[in-house]
Amino acid sequence: MPEAPPTDEGWFVLHDFRTVDWDAWRDAPEHERERAIAEGTEHLRRHEEVADSDEGASAVFSVLGHKADLLVVHFRPTLDDLSRAERAFERTALAGFTTQPTSYVSVTEISGYSTPEYFDDPDSVDQGLQNYMEGKLQPEIPDDEYVSFYPMSKRRGEEHNWYDIDFEERAEMMETHAETGKEYAGKIKQVIASSVGFDDYEWGVTLFSDDPTHIKDIVYDMRFDEVSSKYGEFGQFYVGRRFPPADLGAYLEG
Amino acid sequence: MPEAPPTDEGWFVLHDFRTVDWDAWRDAPEHERERAIAEGTEHLRRHEEVADSDEGASAVFSVLGHKADLLVVHFRPTLDDLSRAERAFERTALAGFTTQPTSYVSVTEISGYSTPEYFDDPDSVDQGLQNYMEGKLQPEIPDDEYVSFYPMSKRRGEEHNWYDIDFEERAEMMETHAETGKEYAGKIKQVIASSVGFDDYEWGVTLFSDDPTHIKDIVYDMRFDEVSSKYGEFGQFYVGRRFPPADLGAYLEG
Amino acid sequence: MPEAPPTDEGWFVLHDFRTVDWDAWRDAPEHERERAIAEGTEHLRRHEEVADSDEGASAVFSVLGHKADLLVVHFRPTLDDLSRAERAFERTALAGFTTQPTSYVSVTEISGYSTPEYFDDPDSVDQGLQNYMEGKLQPEIPDDEYVSFYPMSKRRGEEHNWYDIDFEERAEMMETHAETGKEYAGKIKQVIASSVGFDDYEWGVTLFSDDPTHIKDIVYDMRFDEVSSKYGEFGQFYVGRRFPPADLGAYLEG
Amino acid sequence: MPEAPPTDEGWFVLHDFRTVDWDAWRDAPEHERERAIAEGTEHLRRHEEVADSDEGASAVFSVLGHKADLLVVHFRPTLDDLSRAERAFERTALAGFTTQPTSYVSVTEISGYSTPEYFDDPDSVDQGLQNYMEGKLQPEIPDDEYVSFYPMSKRRGEEHNWYDIDFEERAEMMETHAETGKEYAGKIKQVIASSVGFDDYEWGVTLFSDDPTHIKDIVYDMRFDEVSSKYGEFGQFYVGRRFPPADLGAYLEG
Amino acid sequence: MPEAPPTDEGWFVLHDFRTVDWDAWRDAPEHERERAIAEGTEHLRRHEEVADSDEGASAVFSVLGHKADLLVVHFRPTLDDLSRAERAFERTALAGFTTQPTSYVSVTEISGYSTPEYFDDPDSVDQGLQNYMEGKLQPEIPDDEYVSFYPMSKRRGEEHNWYDIDFEERAEMMETHAETGKEYAGKIKQVIASSVGFDDYEWGVTLFSDDPTHIKDIVYDMRFDEVSSKYGEFGQFYVGRRFPPADLGAYLEG
Repeated sequence: MPEAPPTDEGWFVLHDFRTVDWDAWRDAPEHERERAIAEGTEHLRRHEEVADSDEGASAVFSVLGHKADLLVVHFRPTLDDLSRAERAFERTALAGFTTQPTSYVSVTEISGYSTPEYFDDPDSVDQGLQNYMEGKLQPEIPDDEYVSFYPMSKRRGEEHNWYDIDFEERAEMMETHAETGKEYAGKIKQVIASSVGFDDYEWGVTLFSDDPTHIKDIVYDMRFDEVSSKYGEFGQFYVGRRFPPADLGAYLEG
Repeated sequence: MPEAPPTDEGWFVLHDFRTVDWDAWRDAPEHERERAIAEGTEHLRRHEEVADSDEGASAVFSVLGHKADLLVVHFRPTLDDLSRAERAFERTALAGFTTQPTSYVSVTEISGYSTPEYFDDPDSVDQGLQNYMEGKLQPEIPDDEYVSFYPMSKRRGEEHNWYDIDFEERAEMMETHAETGKEYAGKIKQVIASSVGFDDYEWGVTLFSDDPTHIKDIVYDMRFDEVSSKYGEFGQFYVGRRFPPADLGAYLEG
Repeated sequence: MPEAPPTDEGWFVLHDFRTVDWDAWRDAPEHERERAIAEGTEHLRRHEEVADSDEGASAVFSVLGHKADLLVVHFRPTLDDLSRAERAFERTALAGFTTQPTSYVSVTEISGYSTPEYFDDPDSVDQGLQNYMEGKLQPEIPDDEYVSFYPMSKRRGEEHNWYDIDFEERAEMMETHAETGKEYAGKIKQVIASSVGFDDYEWGVTLFSDDPTHIKDIVYDMRFDEVSSKYGEFGQFYVGRRFPPADLGAYLEG
Repeated sequence: MPEAPPTDEGWFVLHDFRTVDWDAWRDAPEHERERAIAEGTEHLRRHEEVADSDEGASAVFSVLGHKADLLVVHFRPTLDDLSRAERAFERTALAGFTTQPTSYVSVTEISGYSTPEYFDDPDSVDQGLQNYMEGKLQPEIPDDEYVSFYPMSKRRGEEHNWYDIDFEERAEMMETHAETGKEYAGKIKQVIASSVGFDDYEWGVTLFSDDPTHIKDIVYDMRFDEVSSKYGEFGQFYVGRRFPPADLGAYLEG
Repeated sequence: MPEAPPTDEGWFVLHDFRTVDWDAWRDAPEHERERAIAEGTEHLRRHEEVADSDEGASAVFSVLGHKADLLVVHFRPTLDDLSRAERAFERTALAGFTTQPTSYVSVTEISGYSTPEYFDDPDSVDQGLQNYMEGKLQPEIPDDEYVSFYPMSKRRGEEHNWYDIDFEERAEMMETHAETGKEYAGKIKQVIASSVGFDDYEWGVTLFSDDPTHIKDIVYDMRFDEVSSKYGEFGQFYVGRRFPPADLGAYLEG
């Protein structure tokens, strides 16, 4: 039987998408809009400062198109932290102007396809690799950059079935895939989080870049990698841009 | 023709998901929220105590993300018990603050792939196995643990068709699958219930663990089992955590 | 070219699913609820008595889970009868507390796979068979039993295509399927109705039993029949229980 | 490369489905219902009389089940005519009691699979065939008959791909299909309209008959034609019955 | 491994679909409708004049059927421009009479299948080709013409997988496809924009013509091209017609 790769997990992740009820916003008296902005900004600022937990990271993004208007991403040590953050938003006056059209629950994950020795003993690898792995499990969110989020699974087709091929063959495909990724070093930051058992696809992918065409380019290039072309199943894609909590009012007012 | 395995059935199961109308909750006067909490808590407590029937088990869970906020699970001897429990919830003031985005109807089931002798005569097997089977049919719900629920069917693909392969081959795959499960003994409790003829997939799977990464790990490991990789079709996944009815107010107030 | 089987048709069928707006129900003054119960009961009673047409049959069922709360089934000689029954419900005060989440339109049908002589000349077969056929076309609805409804089509896959195989081979598979059915004689009553040209699947199947595990068992057993395993495509499943119109109030009040 | 058949186009078609808000209807004061009936009737009458354009045809149908209550079909020389008809409905008081759950946009089309000479020069064929073709492009809508509407596409499967087979082979299959159709001459009238580039499937099919079992029979028989069994992909099916605009009030009042 | 083609990108694109709430429109007092028309017209006129950015193009279209009533298309140099345009609409009184049922985010793209030399050095090709490429990246929107929009992806089937075939073979198919397109020179204008990483399909296609049957014809003809027949996966299709902002009132008033 094909073997599962060893994995390690870090922070749990909530992608919390929100749609603004622009009709309600337009019709609300100014003091209600001001209160919504004040409470929303405060909620976002506190979570970006991780005032609710020992560690983690949070950020808010504007989102293009009808699928959502805002995306709030939380990385936290426990699912309970995420549940509290989700409900805390609902207690703000801002929440009264939003609905939650979708969301995604996952946990940051690294897999031992390329560096099995790390998974046997993390201290057996050099500090640089340890830091790299740590950065994957407890990622920072870049400032003022574009974001793309999409969930994905590995195909279990009748002919092409990721879960039915040998570890070595999978490792080789993952290696080639990583090569494509390296061409985007410095242009793209990527967070991979497993949603197996938690949400409808197997992983959530979050890409950051200061140029959205880099995002288009890396996803397109990677689609030609065997691991994607034959084995990738993609869900919906969302694109947006990070803004500081202090700009929430500017975003909402246009 | 391939033969169906012998089966035995126990309690019927309702997974009743609820979404909280947080806008209504935020805007409601305190006495209405207090009444909703009081009636909701009382309803949940009575059902956890199985005051409505001779036997069974019930529990309430918080759920992460947009798909639901609460999951109430009822195990009861009859479908009528489940219908009454579902409608009883609707008579509480809490129901006025919720909608029911989804649900799942099933009956706990054991299959005779590995122990056919039990299905010929339950008394022919030792007491330990009898107790094990009983525990599958009339399961207890663990306290204060994380839960994952998902429905699944066996694939009837043009090439890989579970229902078109021999009993023995299926039994062997189920055996291998059970081996994977045994590696999680003490970490994961699992309830399997058939929804054939009752709901949209063939089975509902409910996993419990005190560590959500165990849930991720077992589902991921099992995906490499032939029975899943080639023959599993999965629906939506829900993740949450059990809380005692007395904590309903704390959950709703944030 | 493969040949279509001869068919005969009987009554047209409407499966009319209704979801109760429990919030509106909870909040309505008693006299409004009483009027809704009175008008709803009267509507159901008149249709069970077939006061609206020369012949037919009607029944109401409670339904478990979020997909519906009530299922009203009408068998009538014409589509116009069904249209009138559907609109007559909308004129009751009960309708104001319900929405119609789904429905199914079909016509009872028998196919000449096993008894072609009947379709050449119904009088050529013995009275017992004639009565059997008649019962399929103008079915009675059993009292106080559980019901399962699901729509289905025959697969037209690239490899396994029901409509591309010979009449004889199809007839043989239907015969084997009927054998499985006979093992449930006395336990399960089944109504088959064609929705080809009328609704989204090709047939609607309605099963009745006094024990819901018989429903689970027959659908599971039949799934191993080649006709289902290779050629069946199933839609959503609904499960519920018949109740007399006089119990409508008891159902709604909990 | 396989060749596209020559085609000719006639009137553009809008299938405009409407769901009645029966709760609003039940609760509306009589004068509002009367006004809605009057304006709705007048709108339908004017469009049946084609008072809005030089030529065309329109009709209204009751529809069974939850998918819609009314279907208004317009045939007109331009898409602009259809847009005006759609918006004109919205200006009636009747529209206030309806929503538009679905619709279909297409253009009547004939294809040169069987009579290529007509497409080279319409005058090269006899007057009977010219009239037949004209009737396909500018169809009449039969009085007081049942209607079935469904959209369809030709399959582009990995193995069976309509668009990848030779013109001659396709022409042969279309010919066989036409033979099946001829068996229903006098029983079924059929309108075929292309929605390629306009709507989600490739064609919309509208069938008329004074007996709905003829509709079931022709669609079932044709499903065994290779062109359907291997190459047909069908959308949702809708069934209803034409009524004269003057009966709108009777329809709405039950 | 198959190689991705070189690409170049131009303006970002937002297809912003809007559904008119005709009930609210019908019931609104005249001064509110007048204000909505005035603000909507001004918003559209300013964006058609590209008063909000250095360069770009915008247009408004009426859309047939239930999927939308209006389509506003914006081409702009940055995603931020699109986000501002989307939110600016929400600040108009017109927005209060609309919802946003769907949308599409993409970036105009040219691919180096046929002219790789351009992608090495744009100045290495003649001015005519440079202008052609420029026109693809910074397109003009034709006046008063019909529009068809649909998203599409290249198939990654188990047998036919676009991303698994050689660059040369893909280039050849694209060349044949372009030949089909050339037959519609002067009849059809086409804008191709990549949505890889931004939205749910891989490209958005926008076709313009003064005759909607040309749109039907080109999409049908191209469906027989191998690149579409074997490798095209299409989403929903929308059809409409451009109108000048000054005609917004006429459109809304019928």
